[in-house]
Amino acid sequence: MRDSRLDLGGIYPPVPTPFDAKGAVDIPALRSNLEFLSGYDLRGVVVLGSNGEAVHLTMDERFALLESVRPLIPHDRLMIAGTGCSSTIQTIELSQRAADAGADAVLVLPPHYYRSQMTDDVLVRHYHAVGDACPVPVLLYNMPACTGIDMSADTISAIATHPGICGLKDSGGNVAKLGSLAERLGSEFQILAGSAGFLLPALSVGAVGGVLALANIAPAQCLSILEHVGKNEWKAARTVQTRLVDVNAAVTSRWGVAGLKAAMNLLGLHGGHVRAPLQALSESNTARLADILTASGIL
Amino acid sequence: MRDSRLDLGGIYPPVPTPFDAKGAVDIPALRSNLEFLSGYDLRGVVVLGSNGEAVHLTMDERFALLESVRPLIPHDRLMIAGTGCSSTIQTIELSQRAADAGADAVLVLPPHYYRSQMTDDVLVRHYHAVGDACPVPVLLYNMPACTGIDMSADTISAIATHPGICGLKDSGGNVAKLGSLAERLGSEFQILAGSAGFLLPALSVGAVGGVLALANIAPAQCLSILEHVGKNEWKAARTVQTRLVDVNAAVTSRWGVAGLKAAMNLLGLHGGHVRAPLQALSESNTARLADILTASGIL
Amino acid sequence: MRDSRLDLGGIYPPVPTPFDAKGAVDIPALRSNLEFLSGYDLRGVVVLGSNGEAVHLTMDERFALLESVRPLIPHDRLMIAGTGCSSTIQTIELSQRAADAGADAVLVLPPHYYRSQMTDDVLVRHYHAVGDACPVPVLLYNMPACTGIDMSADTISAIATHPGICGLKDSGGNVAKLGSLAERLGSEFQILAGSAGFLLPALSVGAVGGVLALANIAPAQCLSILEHVGKNEWKAARTVQTRLVDVNAAVTSRWGVAGLKAAMNLLGLHGGHVRAPLQALSESNTARLADILTASGIL
Amino acid sequence: MRDSRLDLGGIYPPVPTPFDAKGAVDIPALRSNLEFLSGYDLRGVVVLGSNGEAVHLTMDERFALLESVRPLIPHDRLMIAGTGCSSTIQTIELSQRAADAGADAVLVLPPHYYRSQMTDDVLVRHYHAVGDACPVPVLLYNMPACTGIDMSADTISAIATHPGICGLKDSGGNVAKLGSLAERLGSEFQILAGSAGFLLPALSVGAVGGVLALANIAPAQCLSILEHVGKNEWKAARTVQTRLVDVNAAVTSRWGVAGLKAAMNLLGLHGGHVRAPLQALSESNTARLADILTASGIL
Repeated sequence: MRDSRLDLGGIYPPVPTPFDAKGAVDIPALRSNLEFLSGYDLRGVVVLGSNGEAVHLTMDERFALLESVRPLIPHDRLMIAGTGCSSTIQTIELSQRAADAGADAVLVLPPHYYRSQMTDDVLVRHYHAVGDACPVPVLLYNMPACTGIDMSADTISAIATHPGICGLKDSGGNVAKLGSLAERLGSEFQILAGSAGFLLPALSVGAVGGVLALANIAPAQCLSILEHVGKNEWKAARTVQTRLVDVNAAVTSRWGVAGLKAAMNLLGLHGGHVRAPLQALSESNTARLADILTASGIL
Repeated sequence: MRDSRLDLGGIYPPVPTPFDAKGAVDIPALRSNLEFLSGYDLRGVVVLGSNGEAVHLTMDERFALLESVRPLIPHDRLMIAGTGCSSTIQTIELSQRAADAGADAVLVLPPHYYRSQMTDDVLVRHYHAVGDACPVPVLLYNMPACTGIDMSADTISAIATHPGICGLKDSGGNVAKLGSLAERLGSEFQILAGSAGFLLPALSVGAVGGVLALANIAPAQCLSILEHVGKNEWKAARTVQTRLVDVNAAVTSRWGVAGLKAAMNLLGLHGGHVRAPLQALSESNTARLADILTASGIL
Repeated sequence: MRDSRLDLGGIYPPVPTPFDAKGAVDIPALRSNLEFLSGYDLRGVVVLGSNGEAVHLTMDERFALLESVRPLIPHDRLMIAGTGCSSTIQTIELSQRAADAGADAVLVLPPHYYRSQMTDDVLVRHYHAVGDACPVPVLLYNMPACTGIDMSADTISAIATHPGICGLKDSGGNVAKLGSLAERLGSEFQILAGSAGFLLPALSVGAVGGVLALANIAPAQCLSILEHVGKNEWKAARTVQTRLVDVNAAVTSRWGVAGLKAAMNLLGLHGGHVRAPLQALSESNTARLADILTASGIL
Repeated sequence: MRDSRLDLGGIYPPVPTPFDAKGAVDIPALRSNLEFLSGYDLRGVVVLGSNGEAVHLTMDERFALLESVRPLIPHDRLMIAGTGCSSTIQTIELSQRAADAGADAVLVLPPHYYRSQMTDDVLVRHYHAVGDACPVPVLLYNMPACTGIDMSADTISAIATHPGICGLKDSGGNVAKLGSLAERLGSEFQILAGSAGFLLPALSVGAVGGVLALANIAPAQCLSILEHVGKNEWKAARTVQTRLVDVNAAVTSRWGVAGLKAAMNLLGLHGGHVRAPLQALSESNTARLADILTASGIL
């Protein structure tokens, strides 16, 4: 049976990894960002996710970062660590390191380089092996825009039979699928929206929260959507969400991590630099971003 | 300014075109189905849509069908006709014929054969030409699974500047995009969900109803989702929707029109035959479909 | 057994359908273009293909065009007619009309609107039904860029078991697949390259010719590639082909039918107008096209 | 100006990395495979490519492997090392390590996790940074099936302006594009086919050789295609190539690395195990593979 004690319900910013001007991981900048976030009623944070540029970090940098973060966040907040690697063995090793460093759960992308070979059977074996070996619950991470793999409801359901799998972060945005999963898998399988763009729709069919890039810069607004839904105030929730549409797109699909970091910098947070091949937002796009932040009431 | 007098809010079944055993359009069967539907508080019906196998009908068959339908539906119900053709001129001609036959609005797929040439500019010109020439409001029809074209929020917004464009039926299921459109285009641009699979999520961000294959066989359940939302009963709405997930998939993405017609036949309605290349549901799949209908409480 | 008497080997221009300024089919313009082509040692012409804007013609216009063309081309040249429609029954009817009008073979796109339902079995039934009913040989037409369906070697091989299927025009450009088909199906299954861009590579693995938009404006050059290969002059063939790369892209992938018609107009042929939603090439792009035609030695 | 002294023309097996039963890199097995290959007139070998399961190796394992290989291959053979990583800095570091270990060139996949941000400009900057820092020539690696990025002729041409870029290994199979590149970039930009499935077609438009999984198990046959072309014996080349179609598919698109390793094991070479999530070929598929190897004359 799945461990139902870990309640994932809530909002999580997937925190960026700030780099200094020389390209090194900037832990003081990260600490400062985490202090800012600690002022909001977030359920926790995600580290080493897509917004954390995990793929741009060496394994040693990932280990070091994992060990730095736990002391920097409140005890009652969850630390979820992105640990998906190309091989099963590395995914397990990184997951164990994350658990040792205090992660409450791990968020695992499907292996995707040999995607034509990633049949349902292969994905089930992979996730079950990780679930067997990982001391903390495993959250599936469906991210078709980056991996080219859009795990189906059937695939996810087959993986979810393992008691170590606690839920799903979905960035694909197929909300009909999320509703289907909520129906098939019940409340023990916890679904988190992967973008503020469809947080409210996802909540309407049974998601329990979201891992939202936008929550790095607009935590209060993201939280208010969840709170309104909790009070059955759907129209109010909708009003908040629609106001966030443009700014959410700016820091996700349009400009990606560079957009998010630029927004943080504009807001006095510490986005820092991106690592190449990603490029800093141009001056003109930064100006457009500032306008969007202003229009949405964030700046 | 857009004609805001046509309120599209509500549920519409996209009615299948029944064919008899020889392959001819079976108007008595269609009449019988429309009589069944007239017992429910639907806003209207869609004819010649994807479920109507419009692409399998000659133009003469389409004209004849349009003229048959209006007298068969109640006066206060809307008749929306699918009129998208490959060329602008044929789309206009069919739209005018539909209006002459009593259609209250037309539903227009983007031309898609030369899809690499279907730039925003080309699509805007096409829809504006249709809007100029068509005496009734034009509803955009985004159907990427069939057309290979997923119109972006920017494209749709550019098309929506024409006063003849009244809204969008979206079958793509990107609910974040629907929320963005609702925000950008306001309430005069009316959004209809194209599948029961994401009706509730779409309503949560501003859609006003849905064109739902499922409404052909489960009109009461589809209507109840909309009614619950109208009364701010979101949890009740969700309970209904999640119960419909499997059966909706069966008559849409899994088995398509053949599945829908088989379900109608199982329920004592008149789905009739499909036209080749579509094939009737196999016996074993029909048995599975019957189980799904039973499990969902429809049969 | 397949009728091996129809030897398809050679080059075919897929002729555009010229429209006059009012949008009507311009048969005198077409006659003039066919006269120009009759001066070259082409194996025949394709009418009502993608470059013929078949999807923009009413069925009556297609019938009329088919009847006009046969008298306009030399007796020893083949007339191949595009006859693929959405339904099996319309495909059969148009194929029979084409045969009656003197077509030597028909070129049949797969039905593609309900593409998720177009399983191998459905496609095999469709093509075999056409093969059963059509009095002339049937050529498969693989055109993934327009249909969204890329028929696999297995699908094509299953369809090719019918004696009425004589070969394949492939516009997908997966030459490895063409080589596989040549190996599996033998010389009775005749493969034609669907673009000059990969004519020589296709010939290297067993294709017997090509249906080439470029052959409308550069028949001599296209023919010379085939002739050089016939004489085992591969380097000379390559020299010709590489000189045609840019101009071929201009009249196919980049600017499509509008580019081809503009090129014909620049060369003193009668491309005429396109039908909307396609748009005439802009003035600036026409100037660029003229440069490309000049650079390639065609203008 | 590009360094034209490194002539890449020829055939290269991308060697698998054998793992022992415990999952460790098995250098003696690799040595044995390289000894087998040294008996053929290959131009060199590729290590740490897709078939080398580079993504399944830690960076330390990659470093160790690079240092092991150079002494194991003849002096006059080229060692090409796959060094593409997600970040520019790691790609550079691994490229330098490869050069230090004796690699004659590096083969660099585009970064692809943030693919929507991988604009032409970003890819050009990335490859030029690698070209600036890497002491040996850089070969682009276009592998859309694994990366989701299909670099266009324009993108590749823009990257190729850097003198450190010596050519392209293309596994996409769009041979028309290869012909276009050969024409635009001239003979100093050396193109290698990425699969035996289109080796001959690629050679027909200017490729100078191939990096072929099949060359691990059928080096003589792969070489004979190139030799026949060198002697202008195109029909003989085609005969060889078509005989290899099925077996090539078996060890590439159908069963991937697991298929290649199983084939090596069947042939008495040392394919060894794959690393999870990849799974060993099943017994029944291994039996089918044996039949295919026998039919092609390899076993």
